[in-house]
Amino acid sequence: MADALTVVKIGGNVIDDATSLKRFLTAFASLRGAKILIHGGGKIATQVAEKLGIQTTMVDGRRITDQPMLDVVTMVYGGLVNKQIVAKLQALDTNAIGLTGADGSTVLAKKRPVKEIDYGMVGDIEEVDSGQIQFFLRQDLTPVFAPITYNSSGDLLNTNADTMASAIAVDMTKHNDVTLVYCFEKKGVLKDHTDDNSVINELTPALYADYKAAGVINKGMIPKLDNAFKALDNGVSKVIICHADQLTAAVGQGAGTTLKK
Amino acid sequence: MADALTVVKIGGNVIDDATSLKRFLTAFASLRGAKILIHGGGKIATQVAEKLGIQTTMVDGRRITDQPMLDVVTMVYGGLVNKQIVAKLQALDTNAIGLTGADGSTVLAKKRPVKEIDYGMVGDIEEVDSGQIQFFLRQDLTPVFAPITYNSSGDLLNTNADTMASAIAVDMTKHNDVTLVYCFEKKGVLKDHTDDNSVINELTPALYADYKAAGVINKGMIPKLDNAFKALDNGVSKVIICHADQLTAAVGQGAGTTLKK
Repeated sequence: MADALTVVKIGGNVIDDATSLKRFLTAFASLRGAKILIHGGGKIATQVAEKLGIQTTMVDGRRITDQPMLDVVTMVYGGLVNKQIVAKLQALDTNAIGLTGADGSTVLAKKRPVKEIDYGMVGDIEEVDSGQIQFFLRQDLTPVFAPITYNSSGDLLNTNADTMASAIAVDMTKHNDVTLVYCFEKKGVLKDHTDDNSVINELTPALYADYKAAGVINKGMIPKLDNAFKALDNGVSKVIICHADQLTAAVGQGAGTTLKK
Repeated sequence: MADALTVVKIGGNVIDDATSLKRFLTAFASLRGAKILIHGGGKIATQVAEKLGIQTTMVDGRRITDQPMLDVVTMVYGGLVNKQIVAKLQALDTNAIGLTGADGSTVLAKKRPVKEIDYGMVGDIEEVDSGQIQFFLRQDLTPVFAPITYNSSGDLLNTNADTMASAIAVDMTKHNDVTLVYCFEKKGVLKDHTDDNSVINELTPALYADYKAAGVINKGMIPKLDNAFKALDNGVSKVIICHADQLTAAVGQGAGTTLKK
């Protein structure tokens, strides 16, 4: 049987708070076996951009990554956040290695084609080199990915961290038995968004369809869950959605929402 | 005989100019055999700090790295500059991997003790893990180091790029026959600083002492050369000091200044 691998995605809100981040990294470091972390960006990028006088361009409610914004994202996600996480994990006896998709050509992307909207320097993932990532794992290194990829012309590209996590998880199924964990600010997928304890423990595609039809599962969760079910369809053994504080309980004892085929 | 390895340090002035950087990276990518790049920072960090309203503190003419300045250095050197170089090398068919000392615990340091001056978050190198770096080289990865290290408490530390290059070169002699190349804005060590073509082709410790006594070799070059001769004393086979545009000529055909024991 293939070795177990846990791929964890952590969102921006945890990164913005030093105490939450430390608690999360301690839990992450304590997970047994091979693991990979993919982190989002948090509000620091927006704050740095503002201070640098770089305007955030929004088209139809979506943020556009122009070159100055890409530079900020590369500085903040690829530099500050990534390296701080790596150094903190080292102090927790986890031999972390910080990566963007460009490092070791691990995640190659393509600039998103301009259709109705020009998203700018945004990358859609083309290829994950899971062999390269596996080679890091075999050396007891723990890859920590910033949500940045690159294309064959040598441009860096801003990439959605949720998508990056699922793409890596899916490709790693060539080598490992993969559990994908999305950590965010809720305890899981909620039946009632006003009640933080109304966590749906198990979600199948049929149940998901029912909850969507009934309007129980709301807008923001839909792309996340679509992504997560796609990962299950493509070989990932288990997907868990949980609060960042529940990482060990979710992986070990079934806290949060577990998606099943 | 041990495999040849070229360790190249590139300074800030090349990084500040996109055309020079591209030319340099093309030359670097064309070097045969195993290689490692260590880059400096350039003026971008100072510019970003200014725009962010972070004051540069100078004590006795030396820049102090307080926490806000360390964050800027981590963003700019560890993020922007490092990842741009990595992505550009990928486009030149060189499978680069961007690292700080924290990544893979490659370069452990200690916060410089406070004596007359408190340099702040500055790291003095304690230990290079050349085995880890060798492991990247064996996989045809080309390490690209930003001048940032870490300590065992998980703090990032600003570290001089020249020192980082020589420390890495020296430790790699456990595995490789190492040539260390310092690229900067002059064609080598000059006999006459007003004549860019007055390059001293070979420099021995005796000649160096003579030139220093005669005042031919000036202040700024002395720490660089002391560092370079120390690397020779500690097992590095050859040290070359040359212009960034001369990298291939210096490694292959004796351009620049070659230091000999």
